[in-house]
Amino acid sequence: MSLLTIGSVAFDALETPFGKTDKIIGGAATYITLSASYFTKNNNLVAVVGDDFPESMIRDLNSHGVNTDGLQVRVGEKTFFWSGKYHNDMNTRDTVEVQLNVMENFDPVVPASYQDCQYLMLGNTAPAIQKTVIERLNSRPKLIVLDTMNLWIEIANPDLMALLKLVDVLVVNDEEARQLTKEYSLVKAAAKIRTMGPQTVIIKKGEHGALLFQEDRIFFAPALPLESVFDPTGAGDTFAGGFIGYLAKTDDISFDNMKRAIIYGSAMASFCVEKFGAERIMNLTQDEIDERVSEFVKLSAFGLN
Amino acid sequence: MSLLTIGSVAFDALETPFGKTDKIIGGAATYITLSASYFTKNNNLVAVVGDDFPESMIRDLNSHGVNTDGLQVRVGEKTFFWSGKYHNDMNTRDTVEVQLNVMENFDPVVPASYQDCQYLMLGNTAPAIQKTVIERLNSRPKLIVLDTMNLWIEIANPDLMALLKLVDVLVVNDEEARQLTKEYSLVKAAAKIRTMGPQTVIIKKGEHGALLFQEDRIFFAPALPLESVFDPTGAGDTFAGGFIGYLAKTDDISFDNMKRAIIYGSAMASFCVEKFGAERIMNLTQDEIDERVSEFVKLSAFGLN
Repeated sequence: MSLLTIGSVAFDALETPFGKTDKIIGGAATYITLSASYFTKNNNLVAVVGDDFPESMIRDLNSHGVNTDGLQVRVGEKTFFWSGKYHNDMNTRDTVEVQLNVMENFDPVVPASYQDCQYLMLGNTAPAIQKTVIERLNSRPKLIVLDTMNLWIEIANPDLMALLKLVDVLVVNDEEARQLTKEYSLVKAAAKIRTMGPQTVIIKKGEHGALLFQEDRIFFAPALPLESVFDPTGAGDTFAGGFIGYLAKTDDISFDNMKRAIIYGSAMASFCVEKFGAERIMNLTQDEIDERVSEFVKLSAFGLN
Repeated sequence: MSLLTIGSVAFDALETPFGKTDKIIGGAATYITLSASYFTKNNNLVAVVGDDFPESMIRDLNSHGVNTDGLQVRVGEKTFFWSGKYHNDMNTRDTVEVQLNVMENFDPVVPASYQDCQYLMLGNTAPAIQKTVIERLNSRPKLIVLDTMNLWIEIANPDLMALLKLVDVLVVNDEEARQLTKEYSLVKAAAKIRTMGPQTVIIKKGEHGALLFQEDRIFFAPALPLESVFDPTGAGDTFAGGFIGYLAKTDDISFDNMKRAIIYGSAMASFCVEKFGAERIMNLTQDEIDERVSEFVKLSAFGLN
């Protein structure tokens, strides 16, 4: 089934305890579409960049089967830029600099060829922009998944609340879930989010795995214990891309299949953190992915006899 | 198979965001033996209390099948006392007061009837005392499990390092594992601990579950996502008691059985936090335990198709 992804395509400059980068390619939608490309080739991107964005990267996306007809390239403008520095624990980071550039007045255009999309991934960007994409689709997709962040919970709360009513799945991290609901318990937070609209809630806990909530059911997917995390940038987006990519591939949105989708998403995220930026998820093989998923099975399987 | 547990039997005074208690019964060995009592009735305790310790509680332990022949009651002395206050996140706490009392010169006596024990649980207390118990056994138990804490890592490091060489399984929390090894990654920490002696390492992550490391294998057991944690005191000891109790019951120390033991330990711990102190684990039914374990299965089971 076809997947439509909207979100930022950006330049990032990163500093971790292991090193630093100059401007490299980043952005939520970049990680999502790359990750999803290992599951579905009907993979459509809506985003905006400036004319400083390298054409070679657009070709790289295309070679992964990502349709960039919906990627606007604004002449004379600059691509969104974010730079951040991770603390020693790699779980927390400071934003060093943000240049909104083309994102400041991003008006997402949905090409006619995208209109039949069944799976919609609203990657992290302003809720008003995310909502516009839903409104510009002629028919409602089968599944709408939303990612958001602390910034929008703070500065665009009414927009976010309006958007939440329209989506099926919310993907947030534990801090965002708590911030959104004012509940410390993630069980209570998920229940409260489900009253806001999305009937399925995924709470990412980084190195501690992810929780899936739907009706009275909870599923817990572990994160793979890693010797070292090189760069966590994009891990959440890569997770989301694997999740919705797997659902689009299998076209099955049952709870049991969402469990599998979360395992695949977690496997994709575990690759992402091994190198700077999106480098590690640019060239994965199916064998590598299958082997990583089997590590998740070994990690969490037990029999009661 | 028979289980021998050594550790503190104590009075605690607790304050959590939900309320506070006067002196109630606590101590590592109390939680461990109570938890293990749901799995094995050959359950022997070595500990020390003062004559202020209520006889009714000793009868309660006996009624759970706990043999208290090795529980010394020191006339004219007082029981070990600890009081603590939990922060709002329930993950961190401050020690308000410690009165060592009878623990100051505890000389553990192992009754002859305990000598055939196959499973030895060294509940948290000074490493030198824990080591004495091993030395006072005529033959080495089949499995020795050690729990310790940050205090001993700091003030009794040489004793602890000598003890580690003698044990099979170390149970610590994530912070303790990092403190002991100076490694942030739990994978690296576990590998380093395995060079110190114990060939099996369990790292407890509280609400984030527990990891089991042995050779090149890792198993992850989730914690049950709870609506509320009423009082975390004793949860780690209750976990350890369920773990070794299940192993003693089944007399199978294979990796696969240790996985099951960790699930049972996690289930027992999930009861413990529901009420103050040991209240909730005083009167559990087998049905309640079985049902809780089946919740763990539902929580983490997935099929890849």
